[in-house]
Amino acid sequence: MSDFSLHPRLKSDCHYVGKMELSHVLLLNNNYFRWFLLVPEVTESQVHKLTMPQRALLHAETHYLSCCVEEAFRPLRINTGAIGNIVPQLHVHVVARSENDPAWPGVVWGCPESRPYDPSEADSIIDMMQAMLRDFDPKQH
Amino acid sequence: MSDFSLHPRLKSDCHYVGKMELSHVLLLNNNYFRWFLLVPEVTESQVHKLTMPQRALLHAETHYLSCCVEEAFRPLRINTGAIGNIVPQLHVHVVARSENDPAWPGVVWGCPESRPYDPSEADSIIDMMQAMLRDFDPKQH
Repeated sequence: MSDFSLHPRLKSDCHYVGKMELSHVLLLNNNYFRWFLLVPEVTESQVHKLTMPQRALLHAETHYLSCCVEEAFRPLRINTGAIGNIVPQLHVHVVARSENDPAWPGVVWGCPESRPYDPSEADSIIDMMQAMLRDFDPKQH
Repeated sequence: MSDFSLHPRLKSDCHYVGKMELSHVLLLNNNYFRWFLLVPEVTESQVHKLTMPQRALLHAETHYLSCCVEEAFRPLRINTGAIGNIVPQLHVHVVARSENDPAWPGVVWGCPESRPYDPSEADSIIDMMQAMLRDFDPKQH
Protein backbone atom coordinates (compact mmCIF):
# COMPACT_ATOMS: atom_id res chain seq x y z
CA MET A 1 0.00 0.00 0.00
CA SER A 2 2.41 2.59 -1.32
CA ASP A 3 0.10 5.54 -0.70
CA PHE A 4 -0.11 4.89 3.04
CA SER A 5 0.95 7.74 5.27
CA LEU A 6 0.77 8.22 9.00
CA HIS A 7 -1.83 10.66 10.31
CA PRO A 8 -0.12 14.05 10.93
CA ARG A 9 -1.11 13.96 14.61
CA LEU A 10 0.58 10.57 15.10
CA LYS A 11 3.64 11.83 13.22
CA SER A 12 3.94 14.93 15.37
CA ASP A 13 3.22 13.25 18.72
CA CYS A 14 5.43 10.18 18.31
CA HIS A 15 8.89 8.86 17.54
CA TYR A 16 9.03 6.30 14.76
CA VAL A 17 10.29 2.88 15.92
CA GLY A 18 9.87 0.51 12.99
CA LYS A 19 7.65 -1.62 10.81
CA MET A 20 6.30 -5.06 11.63
CA GLU A 21 4.51 -7.13 8.97
CA LEU A 22 1.29 -5.15 9.00
CA SER A 23 1.87 -2.29 11.39
CA HIS A 24 4.15 0.63 12.02
CA VAL A 25 5.31 0.93 15.62
CA LEU A 26 5.50 4.34 17.26
CA LEU A 27 6.67 5.59 20.66
CA LEU A 28 4.58 8.43 22.07
CA ASN A 29 6.88 11.32 22.93
CA ASN A 30 5.82 11.43 26.57
CA ASN A 31 8.47 10.35 29.01
CA TYR A 32 5.94 9.82 31.84
CA PHE A 33 4.95 6.54 30.17
CA ARG A 34 6.36 3.80 27.99
CA TRP A 35 3.53 4.18 25.51
CA PHE A 36 3.61 2.51 22.10
CA LEU A 37 1.22 2.52 19.16
CA LEU A 38 0.68 0.03 16.37
CA VAL A 39 -0.59 1.61 13.16
CA PRO A 40 -1.55 -1.09 10.66
CA GLU A 41 -1.29 -0.26 6.96
CA VAL A 42 -4.99 -0.60 6.24
CA THR A 43 -7.75 1.71 5.08
CA GLU A 44 -10.39 0.59 7.61
CA SER A 45 -10.46 2.65 10.78
CA GLN A 46 -11.84 0.06 13.23
CA VAL A 47 -10.50 -3.34 14.25
CA HIS A 48 -13.79 -5.20 13.85
CA LYS A 49 -14.01 -4.11 10.20
CA LEU A 50 -10.68 -5.64 9.21
CA THR A 51 -10.51 -8.89 7.27
CA MET A 52 -9.83 -12.02 9.30
CA PRO A 53 -6.16 -12.27 8.15
CA GLN A 54 -5.60 -8.58 8.95
CA ARG A 55 -7.09 -9.03 12.42
CA ALA A 56 -5.05 -12.14 13.07
CA LEU A 57 -1.86 -10.30 12.14
CA LEU A 58 -2.75 -7.20 14.15
CA HIS A 59 -3.50 -9.36 17.21
CA ALA A 60 -0.21 -11.24 16.75
CA GLU A 61 1.66 -7.95 16.49
CA THR A 62 -0.15 -6.52 19.52
CA HIS A 63 0.76 -9.63 21.49
CA TYR A 64 4.39 -9.56 20.40
CA LEU A 65 4.73 -5.84 21.16
CA SER A 66 3.12 -6.44 24.58
CA CYS A 67 5.66 -9.20 25.29
CA CYS A 68 8.52 -6.89 24.26
CA VAL A 69 7.18 -4.15 26.54
CA GLU A 70 6.85 -6.70 29.36
CA GLU A 71 10.44 -7.86 28.87
CA ALA A 72 11.91 -4.39 28.45
CA PHE A 73 10.11 -2.50 31.21
CA ARG A 74 8.61 -5.11 33.61
CA PRO A 75 5.48 -2.98 34.11
CA LEU A 76 2.89 -3.61 36.78
CA ARG A 77 0.30 -3.90 34.00
CA ILE A 78 -0.02 -3.38 30.29
CA ASN A 79 -3.05 -1.44 29.10
CA THR A 80 -4.18 -1.90 25.50
CA GLY A 81 -6.89 -0.08 23.64
CA ALA A 82 -8.28 0.77 20.23
CA ILE A 83 -10.16 4.04 20.50
CA GLY A 84 -9.61 6.48 17.62
CA ASN A 85 -12.23 9.05 18.53
CA ILE A 86 -9.81 11.89 17.84
CA VAL A 87 -7.31 10.40 15.35
CA PRO A 88 -9.44 8.24 13.05
CA GLN A 89 -6.54 6.33 11.48
CA LEU A 90 -6.62 2.86 13.02
CA HIS A 91 -4.11 2.53 15.83
CA VAL A 92 -3.75 0.28 18.87
CA HIS A 93 -2.23 1.54 22.11
CA VAL A 94 0.12 -0.66 24.14
CA VAL A 95 1.06 1.11 27.37
CA ALA A 96 3.26 0.01 30.25
CA ARG A 97 1.67 1.11 33.51
CA SER A 98 3.15 1.69 36.93
CA GLU A 99 1.72 2.74 40.26
CA ASN A 100 4.03 5.74 40.06
CA ASP A 101 2.86 7.08 36.71
CA PRO A 102 0.81 10.29 36.81
CA ALA A 103 -2.42 8.68 35.53
CA TRP A 104 -2.46 5.61 37.82
CA PRO A 105 -4.92 3.94 38.44
CA GLY A 106 -6.88 5.85 35.80
CA VAL A 107 -6.33 5.38 32.10
CA VAL A 108 -3.61 7.22 30.21
CA TRP A 109 -5.97 8.66 27.63
CA GLY A 110 -6.86 12.21 28.56
CA CYS A 111 -4.08 12.45 31.12
CA PRO A 112 -2.72 16.01 30.86
CA GLU A 113 0.76 15.15 32.13
CA SER A 114 3.32 15.11 29.34
CA ARG A 115 7.04 15.73 28.97
CA PRO A 116 9.11 14.96 25.86
CA TYR A 117 11.98 12.49 25.99
CA ASP A 118 15.58 13.64 25.94
CA PRO A 119 16.75 12.64 22.45
CA SER A 120 19.32 10.16 23.81
CA GLU A 121 16.73 8.49 26.03
CA ALA A 122 14.26 8.12 23.15
CA ASP A 123 17.05 6.75 20.94
CA SER A 124 18.00 4.12 23.47
CA ILE A 125 14.38 2.90 23.83
CA ILE A 126 13.92 2.90 20.06
CA ASP A 127 17.17 0.94 19.51
CA MET A 128 16.15 -1.65 22.10
CA MET A 129 12.66 -2.06 20.66
CA GLN A 130 13.94 -2.26 17.08
CA ALA A 131 16.24 -5.11 18.08
CA MET A 132 13.34 -6.97 19.73
CA LEU A 133 10.88 -6.38 16.88
CA ARG A 134 13.30 -7.99 14.41
CA ASP A 135 12.59 -11.38 16.00
CA PHE A 136 8.82 -11.24 15.39
CA ASP A 137 7.39 -14.45 13.98
CA PRO A 138 3.60 -14.19 13.48
CA LYS A 139 3.19 -17.97 13.72
CA GLN A 140 4.41 -17.86 17.32
CA HIS A 141 1.92 -15.18 18.37
CA MET B 1 -13.23 -24.02 35.76
CA SER B 2 -15.95 -24.58 38.33
CA ASP B 3 -14.44 -22.27 40.96
CA PHE B 4 -14.62 -19.23 38.70
CA SER B 5 -16.57 -16.28 40.02
CA LEU B 6 -17.00 -12.77 38.75
CA HIS B 7 -15.20 -10.01 40.63
CA PRO B 8 -17.66 -8.38 43.08
CA ARG B 9 -17.19 -4.97 41.45
CA LEU B 10 -18.14 -6.37 38.03
CA LYS B 11 -21.12 -8.14 39.57
CA SER B 12 -22.40 -5.00 41.28
CA ASP B 13 -21.79 -2.62 38.35
CA CYS B 14 -23.19 -4.78 35.55
CA HIS B 15 -26.14 -6.77 34.28
CA TYR B 16 -25.36 -10.34 33.30
CA VAL B 17 -25.95 -11.06 29.59
CA GLY B 18 -24.65 -14.57 28.94
CA LYS B 19 -21.73 -16.87 28.36
CA MET B 20 -19.78 -17.35 25.15
CA GLU B 21 -17.26 -20.18 24.80
CA LEU B 22 -14.56 -18.61 26.96
CA SER B 23 -16.07 -15.41 28.29
CA HIS B 24 -19.01 -14.12 30.25
CA VAL B 25 -20.67 -11.07 28.69
CA LEU B 26 -21.83 -8.22 30.90
CA LEU B 27 -23.69 -4.96 30.27
CA LEU B 28 -22.48 -2.05 32.39
CA ASN B 29 -25.46 -0.58 34.22
CA ASN B 30 -24.94 2.90 32.75
CA ASN B 31 -27.59 4.00 30.33
CA TYR B 32 -25.42 6.80 28.91
CA PHE B 33 -23.52 4.17 26.94
CA ARG B 34 -23.99 0.77 25.34
CA TRP B 35 -20.99 -0.62 27.20
CA PHE B 36 -20.26 -4.35 27.31
CA LEU B 37 -17.55 -6.40 28.99
CA LEU B 38 -16.10 -9.79 28.18
CA VAL B 39 -14.79 -11.65 31.22
CA PRO B 40 -12.93 -14.80 30.14
CA GLU B 41 -12.87 -17.74 32.54
CA VAL B 42 -9.12 -17.69 33.07
CA THR B 43 -6.81 -17.11 35.99
CA GLU B 44 -4.35 -14.80 34.20
CA SER B 45 -5.16 -11.12 34.55
CA GLN B 46 -3.58 -9.79 31.34
CA VAL B 47 -4.27 -10.64 27.70
CA HIS B 48 -0.64 -11.06 26.70
CA LYS B 49 -0.16 -13.75 29.36
CA LEU B 50 -2.92 -16.01 28.03
CA THR B 51 -2.10 -19.13 26.05
CA MET B 52 -2.36 -18.85 22.28
CA PRO B 53 -5.71 -20.76 22.11
CA GLN B 54 -7.16 -18.59 24.90
CA ARG B 55 -6.07 -15.42 23.12
CA ALA B 56 -7.47 -16.64 19.80
CA LEU B 57 -10.81 -17.36 21.41
CA LEU B 58 -10.91 -14.08 23.33
CA HIS B 59 -10.13 -12.18 20.12
CA ALA B 60 -12.83 -14.09 18.25
CA GLU B 61 -15.33 -13.31 21.01
CA THR B 62 -14.29 -9.65 21.10
CA HIS B 63 -14.75 -9.47 17.34
CA TYR B 64 -18.13 -11.17 17.42
CA LEU B 65 -19.38 -8.99 20.27
CA SER B 66 -18.16 -5.89 18.39
CA CYS B 67 -20.09 -7.01 15.30
CA CYS B 68 -23.23 -7.55 17.42
CA VAL B 69 -22.83 -4.08 18.95
CA GLU B 70 -22.35 -2.64 15.46
CA GLU B 71 -25.48 -4.33 14.16
CA ALA B 72 -27.61 -3.55 17.21
CA PHE B 73 -26.66 0.08 17.84
CA ARG B 74 -24.96 1.37 14.65
CA PRO B 75 -22.47 3.41 16.69
CA LEU B 76 -20.18 6.06 15.26
CA ARG B 77 -17.24 4.09 16.64
CA ILE B 78 -16.56 1.10 18.86
CA ASN B 79 -13.88 1.56 21.52
CA THR B 80 -12.21 -1.53 22.92
CA GLY B 81 -9.74 -1.81 25.74
CA ALA B 82 -8.12 -4.13 28.24
CA ILE B 83 -7.05 -2.09 31.25
CA GLY B 84 -7.73 -3.68 34.63
CA ASN B 85 -5.89 -1.20 36.82
CA ILE B 86 -8.76 -1.13 39.32
CA VAL B 87 -10.51 -4.49 38.81
CA PRO B 88 -7.67 -6.96 38.27
CA GLN B 89 -9.85 -9.80 36.93
CA LEU B 90 -9.21 -9.92 33.18
CA HIS B 91 -11.95 -8.14 31.25
CA VAL B 92 -12.21 -6.52 27.84
CA HIS B 93 -14.40 -3.48 27.24
CA VAL B 94 -16.46 -3.14 24.05
CA VAL B 95 -18.18 0.23 24.00
CA ALA B 96 -20.46 1.81 21.41
CA ARG B 97 -19.60 5.49 21.08
CA SER B 98 -21.62 8.41 19.79
CA GLU B 99 -20.92 12.10 19.37
CA ASN B 100 -23.78 12.70 21.79
CA ASP B 101 -22.50 10.60 24.67
CA PRO B 102 -21.22 12.50 27.73
CA ALA B 103 -17.59 11.39 27.33
CA TRP B 104 -17.16 12.10 23.60
CA PRO B 105 -14.51 12.45 22.17
CA GLY B 106 -12.68 11.39 25.32
CA VAL B 107 -12.60 7.83 26.54
CA VAL B 108 -15.39 6.37 28.67
CA TRP B 109 -13.08 5.23 31.45
CA GLY B 110 -13.10 7.76 34.23
CA CYS B 111 -16.21 9.52 32.89
CA PRO B 112 -18.25 10.51 35.96
CA GLU B 113 -21.62 10.48 34.15
CA SER B 114 -23.70 7.45 35.06
CA ARG B 115 -27.37 6.58 35.28
CA PRO B 116 -28.80 3.09 35.75
CA TYR B 117 -31.04 1.52 33.12
CA ASP B 118 -34.77 1.18 33.65
CA PRO B 119 -35.22 -2.56 34.24
CA SER B 120 -37.32 -3.01 31.09
CA GLU B 121 -34.75 -1.22 28.96
CA ALA B 122 -31.91 -3.35 30.30
CA ASP B 123 -34.01 -6.48 29.73
CA SER B 124 -34.68 -5.59 26.14
CA ILE B 125 -30.97 -5.01 25.40
CA ILE B 126 -30.03 -8.23 27.20
CA ASP B 127 -32.65 -10.24 25.29
CA MET B 128 -31.46 -8.86 21.97
CA MET B 129 -27.80 -9.54 22.75
CA GLN B 130 -28.51 -13.05 24.05
CA ALA B 131 -30.24 -13.89 20.78
CA MET B 132 -27.26 -12.61 18.78
CA LEU B 133 -24.64 -14.32 20.95
CA ARG B 134 -26.28 -17.70 20.34
CA ASP B 135 -25.06 -17.59 16.73
CA PHE B 136 -21.37 -17.25 17.66
CA ASP B 137 -19.09 -19.55 15.68
CA PRO B 138 -15.43 -19.06 16.65
CA LYS B 139 -14.24 -20.37 13.28
CA GLN B 140 -15.92 -17.44 11.55
CA HIS B 141 -14.23 -14.85 13.74
